[in-house]
Amino acid sequence: MLHPVVLSGGSGSRLWPLSRQNQPKQFLALIGDRSLYQETVIRASKLPGAQAPVTVCSGDHRFMVGEQLQEVGVANGGILLEPMARNTAPAIALAALHVIADDADASLLVMPADHLIEDETAFRNAVAAATGLADAGWLVTFGITPDYAETGYGYILRGEALSDDGFKVERFVEKPDLATAEGYVAQGNYAWNSGMFLFKARSYLDELAKHAPAIFAAAKASYEASESDLDFIRVGKDEFAASPNDSIDYAVMERTDRAAVVPVSCGWSDIGSWSSLWSVAQRDEDDNRHDGDVISIDTKGSLVRASDRRMIATIGVEDLVIIDTPDATLVARKDRVQDVKAIVDRLKAAGRQEHLFHRKVYRPWGSYDSIDMGERFQVKRIVVKPGAALSLQKHHKRAEHWIVVSGVAEVTCDDKVFDLHENESTYIPLGSVHRLRNRGTEPVELIEVQSGSYLGEDDIVRLEDVYGRS
Amino acid sequence: MLHPVVLSGGSGSRLWPLSRQNQPKQFLALIGDRSLYQETVIRASKLPGAQAPVTVCSGDHRFMVGEQLQEVGVANGGILLEPMARNTAPAIALAALHVIADDADASLLVMPADHLIEDETAFRNAVAAATGLADAGWLVTFGITPDYAETGYGYILRGEALSDDGFKVERFVEKPDLATAEGYVAQGNYAWNSGMFLFKARSYLDELAKHAPAIFAAAKASYEASESDLDFIRVGKDEFAASPNDSIDYAVMERTDRAAVVPVSCGWSDIGSWSSLWSVAQRDEDDNRHDGDVISIDTKGSLVRASDRRMIATIGVEDLVIIDTPDATLVARKDRVQDVKAIVDRLKAAGRQEHLFHRKVYRPWGSYDSIDMGERFQVKRIVVKPGAALSLQKHHKRAEHWIVVSGVAEVTCDDKVFDLHENESTYIPLGSVHRLRNRGTEPVELIEVQSGSYLGEDDIVRLEDVYGRS
Repeated sequence: MLHPVVLSGGSGSRLWPLSRQNQPKQFLALIGDRSLYQETVIRASKLPGAQAPVTVCSGDHRFMVGEQLQEVGVANGGILLEPMARNTAPAIALAALHVIADDADASLLVMPADHLIEDETAFRNAVAAATGLADAGWLVTFGITPDYAETGYGYILRGEALSDDGFKVERFVEKPDLATAEGYVAQGNYAWNSGMFLFKARSYLDELAKHAPAIFAAAKASYEASESDLDFIRVGKDEFAASPNDSIDYAVMERTDRAAVVPVSCGWSDIGSWSSLWSVAQRDEDDNRHDGDVISIDTKGSLVRASDRRMIATIGVEDLVIIDTPDATLVARKDRVQDVKAIVDRLKAAGRQEHLFHRKVYRPWGSYDSIDMGERFQVKRIVVKPGAALSLQKHHKRAEHWIVVSGVAEVTCDDKVFDLHENESTYIPLGSVHRLRNRGTEPVELIEVQSGSYLGEDDIVRLEDVYGRS
Repeated sequence: MLHPVVLSGGSGSRLWPLSRQNQPKQFLALIGDRSLYQETVIRASKLPGAQAPVTVCSGDHRFMVGEQLQEVGVANGGILLEPMARNTAPAIALAALHVIADDADASLLVMPADHLIEDETAFRNAVAAATGLADAGWLVTFGITPDYAETGYGYILRGEALSDDGFKVERFVEKPDLATAEGYVAQGNYAWNSGMFLFKARSYLDELAKHAPAIFAAAKASYEASESDLDFIRVGKDEFAASPNDSIDYAVMERTDRAAVVPVSCGWSDIGSWSSLWSVAQRDEDDNRHDGDVISIDTKGSLVRASDRRMIATIGVEDLVIIDTPDATLVARKDRVQDVKAIVDRLKAAGRQEHLFHRKVYRPWGSYDSIDMGERFQVKRIVVKPGAALSLQKHHKRAEHWIVVSGVAEVTCDDKVFDLHENESTYIPLGSVHRLRNRGTEPVELIEVQSGSYLGEDDIVRLEDVYGRS
């Protein structure tokens, strides 16, 4: 059976300021209403005979993965939490071990969570072609037929034909310079290395054991030490930490003699930068892509994205990327967007937060947004999802005022439990044990005014937590 | 005696989004800590023998004028409120009539509120030179020695010498094309028409009566119908409305045979656009001017201004103007900033608010900032100045929750009056008569959560108001 495996390990820092460590690229609705992760699992679930997708992700993103799956109604084939990033070779090994536990003959369709595919029919045909080769023991990589001489991708040179649509891999080549890339495109027998694969789980594990035994051993030990945590599978941390940090390309594909390639032209993009988002997005007659509240005069070839309750006006600019968020705005020349990473590096070096979190922070129970802040106070807008509850907690340094502006909140404050309706408020004194819960079917929205000498997120003592965070 | 007259009628829409109708350019701290208006009154008050400045402004800006004068400790020589804009000729007539009531031989130094003068010594010397000519009955205009061939200003051609530093005006010329402007600069006897004047109040009124009798009559009738309102002088509305709308240049200076010019080179700028602000501002080695939280990579020749609690990152851009405010961001090519006016026109045509108000709105008692808004709620941060009070008021459609986060507020709610300290809250039910007052010496800051079906500013019934707004 075909088991989609979605790799959600990327940090997407080239799409800052929209992409943040806490909510990277794959979880953002960059094109349309759904996130790239959601598009990926939907695409996978539509393949003939596909099982529920397995997701491999960071523990930090587990609730977002769970929620986004639920939102689009795709079944969960397992959410494996990587204790730390170790690149793709061990991540895929975890998924393979997870799948063969129930299906010894399983095939894996490995897909990064953050790629766009516009032509699903072409993709489906390529998957069918790759399935035949995988059944014959080949480790198949999908090679994207190049549209132009991209220097940012690795290339695959195809060798002898194995079927109507598949070839032996002759050679993997690193990112080329422009002249070399132009040569590859002209030759017609090179393809972009997409990072998507199809193989029997067994074939992959065998080749991994043969060519990268340390990775195989670490992944196996880590998987065997798994514990389940709510809907999630937490693999053994120390065991996983012992794995070499390596990609499937280096660890397996470049070493095995069973590598095959299925060329495909399916409107693929890895949306690796703001300029690549611009190039795949629908644009107006001046070649602009505007999202949100944008007023433009004589503007051309630009990607402009406004954020909520804010407008952007542009005059006489060309080939710019303007990305606005509640706490940071990027203005970059479109051909310089690779340097967004350098901005993120500067934020890191300065010990700042703008690369880690958005002003609005997602939690398993909903979200909070720090809408204002002063020397001794902070104001948050808090949304609690139906059925959800914050932890039972207390603070040492702050009192809180809660005003419900929508829905019905159940409030625990020391020994009292009571409901708070729209336009009702309560006071949580410093040190009191409290909890906020939504027993209703509509979201609860409330304004929290914190007052105190210290207002950091770390002044929180969790006494009980339904999400296992206490 | 010398009476400075500060004309504060400009709307400054070319400096949007920082300049808004409710708080135009002259009241903004564009360079340094003080507003252009404050710099103007300070400059005036330092002139030898200068009396307290008279300000002519729109009624909408009266509290801002009063406050800004107070902040810099400059005495108020009268704040004349124009009921509507009628250009400079009638505005100056009001000031002249106001001043001669007490000082029949008064001289007026007329200065727009929004000009920058860097070399105050040169300016002072020019004022001294002009005073001598004014005493002899001349209407003196200050002609700025041009640095370059500006096409955005009118020019003055000087004629015969009247003194060491003053000349008869030979001719006023309209904004020239570039070739003509270059010719003027090369000739050396042309100066920019700065909009600053010095003359006897009597001389101005005489010439106005002679050359523009309808303006003179309207201004006189309007001034005679004045009523005083707190610190302000409200001139007669219907009488003022009857005045032709005309500038001092057209109505008087181009018609009188008593026009003189004193050339001066004093680092003058009217900061008529973002690019002219950039050109007068101190810049870094890449010719950038950055204000606020800005991170730049390979950025040149740009003016970047971040707003509170927000950062701006730029990469690889050149000659841009990037101006951020809490609700709108402008990104424009520096040589296209004249088109900011077209953005403002679009906002007007669309019935929007972003050209009228900032998110933070100044009131005579302090300010409010709409920090969040939902379908049935709004959150405001309210600051009440020491000694100030909001009106006694009620709302038909909303209840309010107040949480004091700094200072001590005196709250009236129906028949109760009580103090609210930091970290204390109260509830103002729909329909109840309430008032907020600060009897202390520190500002009161509070968070107001409004809850209701309609949250517009017009749902307010003012029962009593110390600022005469009920």
